[in-house]
Amino acid sequence: MTRENQEPQWNTVAIYGVGLIGGSIGMALRSRQRCRHVVGIGRREQRLQKAVELGAIDSFVTDLADAEPPDLVVLCAPVQLLASHGRAVADQFPRALITDGGSTKASLVAAMETNPSTRFVGSHPLAGSDKSGVEYSRDDLFEDRVVILTPTEKNAAQDLAEVTTFWESIGARTVIMDPDEHDAALAMTSHVPHVVAAALAAATPSDHQDLIAGGWRDTTRIAAADVELWRQILDDNREHVLDKLKDVRRTIEEFELALTNQDQDLLVRLLAEGKRRRDALGN
Amino acid sequence: MTRENQEPQWNTVAIYGVGLIGGSIGMALRSRQRCRHVVGIGRREQRLQKAVELGAIDSFVTDLADAEPPDLVVLCAPVQLLASHGRAVADQFPRALITDGGSTKASLVAAMETNPSTRFVGSHPLAGSDKSGVEYSRDDLFEDRVVILTPTEKNAAQDLAEVTTFWESIGARTVIMDPDEHDAALAMTSHVPHVVAAALAAATPSDHQDLIAGGWRDTTRIAAADVELWRQILDDNREHVLDKLKDVRRTIEEFELALTNQDQDLLVRLLAEGKRRRDALGN
Repeated sequence: MTRENQEPQWNTVAIYGVGLIGGSIGMALRSRQRCRHVVGIGRREQRLQKAVELGAIDSFVTDLADAEPPDLVVLCAPVQLLASHGRAVADQFPRALITDGGSTKASLVAAMETNPSTRFVGSHPLAGSDKSGVEYSRDDLFEDRVVILTPTEKNAAQDLAEVTTFWESIGARTVIMDPDEHDAALAMTSHVPHVVAAALAAATPSDHQDLIAGGWRDTTRIAAADVELWRQILDDNREHVLDKLKDVRRTIEEFELALTNQDQDLLVRLLAEGKRRRDALGN
Repeated sequence: MTRENQEPQWNTVAIYGVGLIGGSIGMALRSRQRCRHVVGIGRREQRLQKAVELGAIDSFVTDLADAEPPDLVVLCAPVQLLASHGRAVADQFPRALITDGGSTKASLVAAMETNPSTRFVGSHPLAGSDKSGVEYSRDDLFEDRVVILTPTEKNAAQDLAEVTTFWESIGARTVIMDPDEHDAALAMTSHVPHVVAAALAAATPSDHQDLIAGGWRDTTRIAAADVELWRQILDDNREHVLDKLKDVRRTIEEFELALTNQDQDLLVRLLAEGKRRRDALGN
């Protein structure tokens, strides 16, 4: 990629929902001059004004009808708002290409495909944090991060290529998956860890503050994330989350069995399997 | 504390087991000149030689009988060796003050108290890591860390004061607990997080490498720790670990119930409780 010689790829990119993810997309697009104009769409004028001041967007509208037709729209609201935002955008700007930054994909893709002329390609950047809000945005949030794209047979090849270019142009690398496979895999690698972290934190008595070691801190860190954002993710992906959570709970029950029976071989086997998987996946 | 004017507190401190914890104690004592001589005790000459080269100890013996009588002995072996090491030290050096760096306390304290003339005060520095081995030792490992001391009514006040001085002189702050209370609390704040991290890692399919987000990395980090060290900790503290693990498993089952019934109020309550406890305990 010879970034220096590139013309801006897009005239206007609209970001619907300017929090950590949306704000970071805006900052990355602006600092890399990948489009002429980044417009924020949202409800709360004060937050959007803050996003302008932080350099995340060039301007904003609080009513879709007030926006110039964008080339590309990135939906960045909490997951259970994405479908309604997406359909509103498609109604208002039927020629725009639309993608998103949501943590679940199957329900959104299905909702967007109800109108066959809508140009929507789902995506999920693996670049979250236990923080939320535009004030935590960074123009390098997507640098070397994976973005999973979930096109279906209904997508035009050119639209997939354009969404791929979009994410790669702000530093990410892309992986393609089926929407439901995405939701099953992310249940294990992201959503169930959240439940486990929250369960561990919730079960810890509050008078143990002085006795917290580094392991507890690491293991529970994501439990500090926004409750409502995660309620929506877990609820939207509940079938896969339940399925994988059962796998983890059964592994915990195996540990209980090993400890109850003082079965040292089983205890070693379980610990070694955990270490093997963790070591394979690096720091 | 006016460190500059202090005479060395001890003539010889012996460290029995020179890994991450023992090596860091040696480095801290030497860099702060808190004793005249740090001697390492162990089985493997090559590892002890390495500890000398790293500046963790001044010299070493592989046979207790070869050591000059130390003033203070710190037992730093894996937990299921501590009692036999401790009794051997007490037999060889009946006048020495003995402490340790082990993660469990009740069984060790009971074993050491079988001889009423033994001067033993149990301790547990909350300064572990997913790393082990003297090569990871640091002279500031205990700086601002909590060390839990578990004296009993059988300890002389002067011995407790001396062990307190020892840990404080290498930067730690001390907390006093009953040995069994310690084991119950640490089951929740350290041992159960290890099981949960290992269970989550073990349950994650190995083909998901590209799909791992930051939350999974944090939540499973300690699963990379040494298997045999942790087998011994979990086995030694199995009753408390089983008890607390059940609390966490039941909280996970509550999450399953909330997701199955789409009970949004329960889901919010569980997530909010996890966030509240995590936020209270800081980064």
